[in-house]
Amino acid sequence: MSLGIVFLSELFGTAILTLLGCGVVANVALKGTKGNNGGFLMVTWGWGIAVFAGVFVAVKSGAHLNPAVTLGLLINGKVEYAPGVAVDFASTVTYFGAQLLGAILGAGFMWAAHKQHFDAEPEPANKLGVFATGPAIRSTPWNLVTEIIGTFVLVFGILTFGGTPSGLGPLAVALLVVGIGVSLGGPTGYAINPARDLGPRIAHALLPIKGKGSSDWGYSWIPVVGPLVGGALAGGVAAVVPIVAS
Amino acid sequence: MSLGIVFLSELFGTAILTLLGCGVVANVALKGTKGNNGGFLMVTWGWGIAVFAGVFVAVKSGAHLNPAVTLGLLINGKVEYAPGVAVDFASTVTYFGAQLLGAILGAGFMWAAHKQHFDAEPEPANKLGVFATGPAIRSTPWNLVTEIIGTFVLVFGILTFGGTPSGLGPLAVALLVVGIGVSLGGPTGYAINPARDLGPRIAHALLPIKGKGSSDWGYSWIPVVGPLVGGALAGGVAAVVPIVAS
Amino acid sequence: MSLGIVFLSELFGTAILTLLGCGVVANVALKGTKGNNGGFLMVTWGWGIAVFAGVFVAVKSGAHLNPAVTLGLLINGKVEYAPGVAVDFASTVTYFGAQLLGAILGAGFMWAAHKQHFDAEPEPANKLGVFATGPAIRSTPWNLVTEIIGTFVLVFGILTFGGTPSGLGPLAVALLVVGIGVSLGGPTGYAINPARDLGPRIAHALLPIKGKGSSDWGYSWIPVVGPLVGGALAGGVAAVVPIVAS
Amino acid sequence: MSLGIVFLSELFGTAILTLLGCGVVANVALKGTKGNNGGFLMVTWGWGIAVFAGVFVAVKSGAHLNPAVTLGLLINGKVEYAPGVAVDFASTVTYFGAQLLGAILGAGFMWAAHKQHFDAEPEPANKLGVFATGPAIRSTPWNLVTEIIGTFVLVFGILTFGGTPSGLGPLAVALLVVGIGVSLGGPTGYAINPARDLGPRIAHALLPIKGKGSSDWGYSWIPVVGPLVGGALAGGVAAVVPIVAS
Repeated sequence: MSLGIVFLSELFGTAILTLLGCGVVANVALKGTKGNNGGFLMVTWGWGIAVFAGVFVAVKSGAHLNPAVTLGLLINGKVEYAPGVAVDFASTVTYFGAQLLGAILGAGFMWAAHKQHFDAEPEPANKLGVFATGPAIRSTPWNLVTEIIGTFVLVFGILTFGGTPSGLGPLAVALLVVGIGVSLGGPTGYAINPARDLGPRIAHALLPIKGKGSSDWGYSWIPVVGPLVGGALAGGVAAVVPIVAS
Repeated sequence: MSLGIVFLSELFGTAILTLLGCGVVANVALKGTKGNNGGFLMVTWGWGIAVFAGVFVAVKSGAHLNPAVTLGLLINGKVEYAPGVAVDFASTVTYFGAQLLGAILGAGFMWAAHKQHFDAEPEPANKLGVFATGPAIRSTPWNLVTEIIGTFVLVFGILTFGGTPSGLGPLAVALLVVGIGVSLGGPTGYAINPARDLGPRIAHALLPIKGKGSSDWGYSWIPVVGPLVGGALAGGVAAVVPIVAS
Repeated sequence: MSLGIVFLSELFGTAILTLLGCGVVANVALKGTKGNNGGFLMVTWGWGIAVFAGVFVAVKSGAHLNPAVTLGLLINGKVEYAPGVAVDFASTVTYFGAQLLGAILGAGFMWAAHKQHFDAEPEPANKLGVFATGPAIRSTPWNLVTEIIGTFVLVFGILTFGGTPSGLGPLAVALLVVGIGVSLGGPTGYAINPARDLGPRIAHALLPIKGKGSSDWGYSWIPVVGPLVGGALAGGVAAVVPIVAS
Repeated sequence: MSLGIVFLSELFGTAILTLLGCGVVANVALKGTKGNNGGFLMVTWGWGIAVFAGVFVAVKSGAHLNPAVTLGLLINGKVEYAPGVAVDFASTVTYFGAQLLGAILGAGFMWAAHKQHFDAEPEPANKLGVFATGPAIRSTPWNLVTEIIGTFVLVFGILTFGGTPSGLGPLAVALLVVGIGVSLGGPTGYAINPARDLGPRIAHALLPIKGKGSSDWGYSWIPVVGPLVGGALAGGVAAVVPIVAS
């Protein structure tokens, strides 16, 4: 399969991911929406189904949708990222680039769908919170720990799903993301995906959002580095522990 | 397959869709029900399972249940709407007619099931809200944008499910509808289906509902035109982007 | 298959159904439980999973678990209730008797599991509400209409699931029951099953529940007759409308 | 398969179980998290998906993750705990040991992920409640009854899933655990698994948790003995009742 198709597949998939994922936060957080104050459980279902839909759309490229997943597969020693897509420098860069660009685009459409509610919302922090994650209690080491553990569970889970007979397909990943959200999302808002956080944060910086404040670049590296470390660890551990079917 | 069977299949399926879908709004919105103030997440699950049940009932006709889906398949260039049902003028009109009529009938049974709570509810706007969608903040262009984006995700998702091996069947569409609800339903209430909105609005106008107010015909074209545009765009994009399995 | 196995299968399945189904109401309604005031959505998931578990346990007898389902299959003209179980007077009586007895037993275990919270709960109506349904607004004709419509959707849905290829199995029925709950359960509490309502009501009358009040026998015939009428209608309509695969 | 692989498989699976399971309680109970006061339904979904993820990870060893399940299979008369793993003393001890150790480790990572919120939480009882269950109303006999009934449903359900054709796999068990939680978790918090309760309780005693109080050892034997009795009863009943496919 050509890298052009991989690029489009990951681009569309990640755009759907942030369109729906950031969308549910907009619905819960912004003034005047019908789902205002809908609760954390609704947010986690929204992100879970965002992954579910993104995986269907990106099935041709193996639906990574997340640089931490791509890196985990690389570290794990896979020879293909998807059927017909060899693991090499060019394909890795293609995945990373498409994921980041898709995440930016999806956040842009999310903003358009909620334009009037961004205008009506008075609080700049709520607007940023729709796009990017932030910590409940700021602390570089502990915020990193939380993101590393959450992403480890995600990527280790994905690697074990591959060896299990089941007709669930994308639903298994979606449920795992719901689970990580409700169980490990409390301290940092579970980025667990560098593209999901950095892409919408760039969109926040670029878009003409009425009354927006800082994009909090000081925190922005944590939801990039933490997930990459967690994904790499999961790929490495899964390669050496003999419980994961290859 | 005869168009008579297509007609009955879509009619029953769309009737189940609005019976259960409008039903959950009745349960949440009308005075004195056991699910009163049950929350937005409950509403989105109700509509998701309404689609789920409608798809099972209408499996013979391909379970469009939505003119935006039918139009998306037409624009996409499909030669059949369902196994044995050619895409042509007569079949297209059959789908549209059955969907609209089914949506009206389902809303009628929904009203009968909640008769006493419609009688007890004092607020006319709540009664209309059970039948038809309305915007949180009224704006022709932005309400259209929200409905177009939501329906694009629905129809693009349905087109990509078709090329993905999975045993989920109707559950995939149901979850996607839950996701669109929680993530993109905040500004307009996610009609994303002209029949789902226009049919029950007609029922609202025709039924002898105690103390009812306006059927808000001024807004009624937006949840028809927006979804049709979104569905057509999805059908067109899916036809040219090489990530969707045919 | 012997009717003895059918009896045991339906008995165990219906006991699991009311143990878990009435259990979630106990958790939400009784004083001092950890799920107190957990909301209507939690109640509907509890009943949905109660059906899910009951269907697995009773798979050998076709997992009717509900006289309205058995009657619907009879009216529909099926020749077997389950593989190897002919439709005749003896088998019909076996299904009905096992369902009612199982529902009584399951309610008894539910009471034992919540013994201290029944003791702590001061309100007799809350205690009855754990066992049996009651109307939000009492009205013989409209309460019957609601139960008939809800049960029609259940039995018609079950009859159409049978003709649809899907790996969902018991999950499809469980989701349908969640959907009927959130969408049509507001006015009467969705008995939609004579055994589910009458069995626990008998248990309520027989058990030594501290401070219990009336078992509301005046209402008890509605959640028996309504579901039987709805199930029979669904069986009849499904037999003549050519959209249901046989 | 070697017992070393069984050990690692159960260890990883049970660690994921308590990492996610205790994690959702941390998110709901500890001060300052994003999911604070998220509700009982969110807790039950968190534990359900914790089981779901743990089962995938531990598929090679049959994914018991619970001494009550292992004991239930033993009493039931199974000759293998998983394909290639004979039921004998050594394998039984391997399962029990790996489950307990995994549960301790998972609770440790859960604590690390929520470190700052454990520090911020003023109430010692809330901290213990994240790790181990406790009764709503303390009573040795009735707390035992509740745990026995809940675990019976779990193990009996797992034994019947085995004989049912379905593509749901781990999802069936996950949903059953959600159901037991919402329906039977109100009085004691549904340990239904000795390792899930004792392991994190040991972690609570060992970890340097700021401001922690008692580990409530006086109650600790109930969520061990109750589930073992319930699992053994389920294994025995399933062996003699002819409704469970072998």
